[in-house]
Amino acid sequence: YICISSTFIKCDMVTNSARLEYQFHVFLLNCSMLLRTFYFLLQSLNTETNGCDLLPALDGDAKTMNFLQEVVDIMLAYIVESFDRSTKVIDFHYPNELLQRNNWELSDEPETLDDILISCRATLKYAIKTAHPRYFNQLSTGLDMVGLAADWLTSTANTNMFTYEVAPVFVLLEYVTLKKMREIIGWQEGRGDGIFSPGGAISNMYAMLLARYKMFPEVKEKGMSSAPRLVAFTSEHSHFSIKKGAAALGIGTESVICIKADERGKMIPSDLERRIIEAKQKGYVPFFVSATAGTTVYGAFDPLMAIADICKKHDIWMHVDGAWGGSLLMSRKHRWKLNGVERANSMTWNPHKMMAVPLQCSALLVREEGLMQSCNQMQACYLFQQDKQYDLSYDTGDKALQCGRHVDIFKLWLMWRAKGTIGFEAQIDKCLELSEYLYNKIKDREGYEMVFDGKPQHTNVCFWYLPPGVRYLEDKVEKMKRLHKVAPVIKARMMEYGTTMVSYQPQGDKVNFFRMVISNPAATFEDIDFLIEEIERLGQDL
Amino acid sequence: YICISSTFIKCDMVTNSARLEYQFHVFLLNCSMLLRTFYFLLQSLNTETNGCDLLPALDGDAKTMNFLQEVVDIMLAYIVESFDRSTKVIDFHYPNELLQRNNWELSDEPETLDDILISCRATLKYAIKTAHPRYFNQLSTGLDMVGLAADWLTSTANTNMFTYEVAPVFVLLEYVTLKKMREIIGWQEGRGDGIFSPGGAISNMYAMLLARYKMFPEVKEKGMSSAPRLVAFTSEHSHFSIKKGAAALGIGTESVICIKADERGKMIPSDLERRIIEAKQKGYVPFFVSATAGTTVYGAFDPLMAIADICKKHDIWMHVDGAWGGSLLMSRKHRWKLNGVERANSMTWNPHKMMAVPLQCSALLVREEGLMQSCNQMQACYLFQQDKQYDLSYDTGDKALQCGRHVDIFKLWLMWRAKGTIGFEAQIDKCLELSEYLYNKIKDREGYEMVFDGKPQHTNVCFWYLPPGVRYLEDKVEKMKRLHKVAPVIKARMMEYGTTMVSYQPQGDKVNFFRMVISNPAATFEDIDFLIEEIERLGQDL
Repeated sequence: YICISSTFIKCDMVTNSARLEYQFHVFLLNCSMLLRTFYFLLQSLNTETNGCDLLPALDGDAKTMNFLQEVVDIMLAYIVESFDRSTKVIDFHYPNELLQRNNWELSDEPETLDDILISCRATLKYAIKTAHPRYFNQLSTGLDMVGLAADWLTSTANTNMFTYEVAPVFVLLEYVTLKKMREIIGWQEGRGDGIFSPGGAISNMYAMLLARYKMFPEVKEKGMSSAPRLVAFTSEHSHFSIKKGAAALGIGTESVICIKADERGKMIPSDLERRIIEAKQKGYVPFFVSATAGTTVYGAFDPLMAIADICKKHDIWMHVDGAWGGSLLMSRKHRWKLNGVERANSMTWNPHKMMAVPLQCSALLVREEGLMQSCNQMQACYLFQQDKQYDLSYDTGDKALQCGRHVDIFKLWLMWRAKGTIGFEAQIDKCLELSEYLYNKIKDREGYEMVFDGKPQHTNVCFWYLPPGVRYLEDKVEKMKRLHKVAPVIKARMMEYGTTMVSYQPQGDKVNFFRMVISNPAATFEDIDFLIEEIERLGQDL
Repeated sequence: YICISSTFIKCDMVTNSARLEYQFHVFLLNCSMLLRTFYFLLQSLNTETNGCDLLPALDGDAKTMNFLQEVVDIMLAYIVESFDRSTKVIDFHYPNELLQRNNWELSDEPETLDDILISCRATLKYAIKTAHPRYFNQLSTGLDMVGLAADWLTSTANTNMFTYEVAPVFVLLEYVTLKKMREIIGWQEGRGDGIFSPGGAISNMYAMLLARYKMFPEVKEKGMSSAPRLVAFTSEHSHFSIKKGAAALGIGTESVICIKADERGKMIPSDLERRIIEAKQKGYVPFFVSATAGTTVYGAFDPLMAIADICKKHDIWMHVDGAWGGSLLMSRKHRWKLNGVERANSMTWNPHKMMAVPLQCSALLVREEGLMQSCNQMQACYLFQQDKQYDLSYDTGDKALQCGRHVDIFKLWLMWRAKGTIGFEAQIDKCLELSEYLYNKIKDREGYEMVFDGKPQHTNVCFWYLPPGVRYLEDKVEKMKRLHKVAPVIKARMMEYGTTMVSYQPQGDKVNFFRMVISNPAATFEDIDFLIEEIERLGQDL
């Protein structure tokens, strides 16, 4: 509680007129917290309590409220700390070390609630602060306060998406939100279908499943042996989930034909058409093209309009994997990068990435109505009774691959209400501005080399940092060998110091390079400056 | 705040010795709440605030804490209310009506935080109280306070399960917990593999995918055309996800052979063997048997030992779908019902059902080590870099079908710590005791007829209620026709009154019957009595 109180005192004042009022606020809050501290102190003098004392235990109300409030206080302190640049992004320990730093074992006997609180603190102590303004490691970063509140509320409601009966509000909100997203894609009156799935990989798998069903519905009953050899197409820079999906669906990874990308990572339409024709000549049946809007590493947007033309000509399902780049549709400034998406048959769009909605929140949008239902339904009579009193079209569970389905909609919906579309737009535009700043800063800076030329289209900035010891090497082979080891070492040092985190990888014949991405609304120009300084500080001796 | 305060006053006293102390607690808490109320009142006199004022906004700390605390207060009030039998399980409205009762639309402009709080209240007002002691509608009911706290903390940590790098603690806890679960299954030293997946249907799909990969690994690359016709076997009472999985994986629903169940809903092993031999004679390849431990409707346990014998003899992957019944392994009294599970190759076990862990929490356990990895891996180099500083065996993401994966482990782990294995056992035993009580109460009661004879093996009690107007009908056809309509009408009335909720369905040639299940630790004998009285009250005029 001292830590929380100090936080309030820390944020010193704003305008003169508000100062007095603010001080009174702080006073009141501190009083309230002091009383609470006193109360909990008093409680701890009691005999030890455990989980059995909480609700639904008789007279468990007070104990429950106290326990939950203590957990909330732990979380509130963690949240404030997460946004504080002076704290570490990570308190890193190697797996074996971390295993020994705490007792993580499960046993027969219960622990006290005090022990449980200790576990909560330990868990957060060693967690990554994904909200930290200098955490750039993944496509999903940041922590939105309204989104978080919504996720807490979702947990409290603890229900399942399968029917209107058990999730009336959430089913309606899913309906409202999917329609809005389809309108933004550009489908007439927002018509179509969709679902929130447990992530982009599953959303892409849904799309592939639908494409197959659309062309060969008999596969549902008779399996792949009832269809000719199906082939799918995606760029060599696309996400691995396309192949993963093909492996699972019995199509096989070899039937996913990788189309060449240009030096910026965009699919080359002429190569797509060539490979489609080639496949047809072999007697294969092209059924699915997955274009990527925002590739994972380069952040490239495939030319959707040209791809749509080819799909139309050859009558192939066009899917757009916009898991990462789909959110740019919310920006009037950047949405042109997805021109042509309105011609797609389906689209993956993960609000948990560029819109910073808490994990997980991934949508699959489908242009054709009714297809998901007929593709996936099994009509389990214990769940989707046909003689209910309400409009059964709201029992959307049977169009899912899953049976139970987590409620992922509320956090997106509530954030949308809190920000408005323009709020998301501002947030996205700002991240893109930051990445442009980074690009401009390093493109001519000594010791840096860009992986591809030109201004990035998404927030991905891919670059090598060449430490002085590598920079002037003349033996090219030796230079590449040494450079390949630079990023992993710098990254490991970042984690050990806990100052920042950014991803790296090789790609094709290119040795390890940094892939900077910005999706955290907490990041600022100063954080970009810091990153560059930190890379140089940690890499100078290499 | 008034509502919360009154809750504290309500739970009147326990023992004389504690009374004074307790009253002092209440006094302190009320003081603290009064101050807080005053503080918020003062705040609301300020100009309107919106999401932009929260963290990471400069000086957003205090506003963030207040906002989150307000949401917490709304949730705490909801939680206390949920366990209160005098409140409704549901405040039911038809979809169109609910759409009009609130503004659920998404717009361009942001709303104020006050509006956001109103939306939170509205969402909970119309939500199902799944924690309510009289909510029996699904296999997942109840709300565990430690599990809830853990889920809040998970949202706050907001990370992803793919690598140790971004989820060090959660990856370790998954490791610890899966090992413990495998020990409980009876696999030597807890060896094997596993994953937490987004639900039982996906876990079952994983199992089918692994079984196929084990027998025909080339399907991963070459698709189903590289394998002979594969057939899977499961009982006619099994969960629909087996067929859903077969449809998705390109095996086809017709290749799922439904084995006869006895009158109690258990798979008949002799029929299984007969159908396996028959399939082989047709040149098909049996590759997968899914036995069910706890069927959805009857709660039946297939005879695992006999099925294991058959699978061994014919060299077929044995999967146990214990999504519902798997948790009985935690009970020394009931675990015999799963005898033979230790011989299975894989098992689905959903702690979010009978162990009342908040949704979602489903595990797939696999006996063979390494198989999941080789079956599913795609080795994306931007995520699973091979030159990291730590032990890469903790980067478990590549064995998943998904790429990003929600953290589902912490709530189970924390509950396990709080209860111990014996706590889960007690909770499960109590639910089974309640269902036996219900069975004993209605089996000879006038107006009731059991769907199957004998004491239920799980908490499923399946029965018809015959209202007086149906009970004495002599025309059998007419009687069945009328009886078929009874459960839907009673259920609709339950929802309109909001007093309780229980599921119903037809099965095979059996007309609509009630399927009572008990997984809510809050339920008591009185709630069972209430259910029976309520069915009779609502059905007496039918």
